[in-house]
Amino acid sequence: MSIGACPVPRAETERVLLGHGSGGQLSAELLREVIVPALGRAARTGAMEDGALIQVDAHELVMSTDTFVVNPRFFAGGDIGSLAVHGTINDLAMMGAMPIALSLALVIEEGFPIDELRAICQSVGEAAVAAGVQVVTGDTKVVGHGDADGLFVNTAGLGRRLAGACPSATRAAIGDVVLVSGPIGRHGTTVMSTRIGLDFESDISSDSQPLHRLVEAMVAVAGEAIHVMRDPTRGGVASTLNEIAEASGVQICLEETAIPVPPTVAAVCEILGLDPLHVANEGCLVAVVAPEVADVVLAAMRATPEGREACAIGRVIDADAVRVVMSTLVGSRRIVDMLIGEQLPRIC
Amino acid sequence: MSIGACPVPRAETERVLLGHGSGGQLSAELLREVIVPALGRAARTGAMEDGALIQVDAHELVMSTDTFVVNPRFFAGGDIGSLAVHGTINDLAMMGAMPIALSLALVIEEGFPIDELRAICQSVGEAAVAAGVQVVTGDTKVVGHGDADGLFVNTAGLGRRLAGACPSATRAAIGDVVLVSGPIGRHGTTVMSTRIGLDFESDISSDSQPLHRLVEAMVAVAGEAIHVMRDPTRGGVASTLNEIAEASGVQICLEETAIPVPPTVAAVCEILGLDPLHVANEGCLVAVVAPEVADVVLAAMRATPEGREACAIGRVIDADAVRVVMSTLVGSRRIVDMLIGEQLPRIC
Repeated sequence: MSIGACPVPRAETERVLLGHGSGGQLSAELLREVIVPALGRAARTGAMEDGALIQVDAHELVMSTDTFVVNPRFFAGGDIGSLAVHGTINDLAMMGAMPIALSLALVIEEGFPIDELRAICQSVGEAAVAAGVQVVTGDTKVVGHGDADGLFVNTAGLGRRLAGACPSATRAAIGDVVLVSGPIGRHGTTVMSTRIGLDFESDISSDSQPLHRLVEAMVAVAGEAIHVMRDPTRGGVASTLNEIAEASGVQICLEETAIPVPPTVAAVCEILGLDPLHVANEGCLVAVVAPEVADVVLAAMRATPEGREACAIGRVIDADAVRVVMSTLVGSRRIVDMLIGEQLPRIC
Repeated sequence: MSIGACPVPRAETERVLLGHGSGGQLSAELLREVIVPALGRAARTGAMEDGALIQVDAHELVMSTDTFVVNPRFFAGGDIGSLAVHGTINDLAMMGAMPIALSLALVIEEGFPIDELRAICQSVGEAAVAAGVQVVTGDTKVVGHGDADGLFVNTAGLGRRLAGACPSATRAAIGDVVLVSGPIGRHGTTVMSTRIGLDFESDISSDSQPLHRLVEAMVAVAGEAIHVMRDPTRGGVASTLNEIAEASGVQICLEETAIPVPPTVAAVCEILGLDPLHVANEGCLVAVVAPEVADVVLAAMRATPEGREACAIGRVIDADAVRVVMSTLVGSRRIVDMLIGEQLPRIC
């Protein structure tokens, strides 16, 4: 910016909507049409993925960043602190990397209770120790009362890619098998149930957990034959699969009966009018693998605590204008779209 | 946290104050007494510095993170976008590291003008290109209207330490010379003048600039003999020198007449009742160097655009209970304290 070049809002100014943070189609548009073009040459080609590969001599390092604004900050199965650790570890893991170090940057609203801050930092610490990673650096900013809603937590992560791992959203190939590491929809439905006071709290909890050990087990048995790994957070499994299908120029066909939706998740989605395929997850991954390794990868996944309910949910088929379809229970086929707009704000 | 362990505020809950974000004594207390103990074993010993050294085989990498909440977002000499790039590059540089990659995480308030977002991202891009670093990964969250004040920007950085560089706040030694790379107090006074509408806007601008090339020039001529480098941001030169003196167990004696305070900075400080030594800088550094290299380091600094007004402002002397003192214009000595509480909220 040149000095004093503050843009004056026009009468009909385009404005950021909640849906721009959904992880779905509006998020992708904001990135593709506003943020990346504005960054210009500073944005790496293909940048703004959840994790970026950085070559330092012979080392393949991965860097990622994520800010957590979840509301409420405490929910069954986790809190904003553990979620911030798991979320960034998982962004690294989806690039095939094990975590080396995390940073922790807090934006705190004036008047925030010190006890709650302490509890959240303890949760960060416990989650990091359990995952075997350290918080090496941090930052704390305080803004005035009313200038933030309590606490926002950013974690950035540095990881090192496993030998033999080279997952990428562009590598899904016709014939590949689509795997999911566990039941879907738990995180989003738990946070929403807690926020609006639905009485499901005893039956449901977030799936928030670190996935790097699961990834390590998968890469150990199949290496490069693991073509894609993604954690279906905001926008859910549907948005993630649409992104993969688009990046690879293929179609993905799901089997509705194979998709693991827990009964309570289905019930909450029914009440709230949500599609479980659009609901955020924080402790499961979607993998697209070569057909010849599908069984061995599934077995390796099921041998870990994080992946014991892993299953195959679909196949990659020949390209079509429609990216993701689902063979339904009743034998028909329906289109599975990306999430458009926002259905669950501040879910992570 | 165990499930559902939401802390219930007590009647007299300790709360976070604006001063906890000042970069001064309250910030240090929050870190030392709440955040680091809560992180427990996850916090690296001596952690929560602005930058952390990470050894990857033979490589010395440095990671840092910083969130920017500056208000107003546009000011003479920069904006929240360029500031976020410069701030994180400088955190890396103070560890003797050149930047390899930046991440960019945005928290945007619903309703934020897209044009302003675009302008700020352009500023990020231009600052990154000018500094020779790429934005490799990012994250965008949108929170509801009233849940954040416009836009908060986090940048994390990965850098690689220059061969021969090993600056540390613990290495100030008796006899060392204290250098500053340029005039002090410009950033804080510019932002405050803009925020409250003081009519100094034409005479003053932020010093926001990247310092890695200055550091490269310094390390090239003096290597390990550069004992300490710090950028005196929040809390100003006084807080930075107090931290160095405490970490090294020494006293620092400043010469008031040697400290470069621009007349407009002095005037704004006079009006606002501030001490220029407590005002934030975003484009100058303080270095503590061995006496035998002081002249050659100063010459190297002055040969760069960023350090052309560099000068010596004091010496390191024998330890004393008082950490930093100043020989004043009139021949007396006064104690130079850390900033206590908050005088300039949301300055960066």
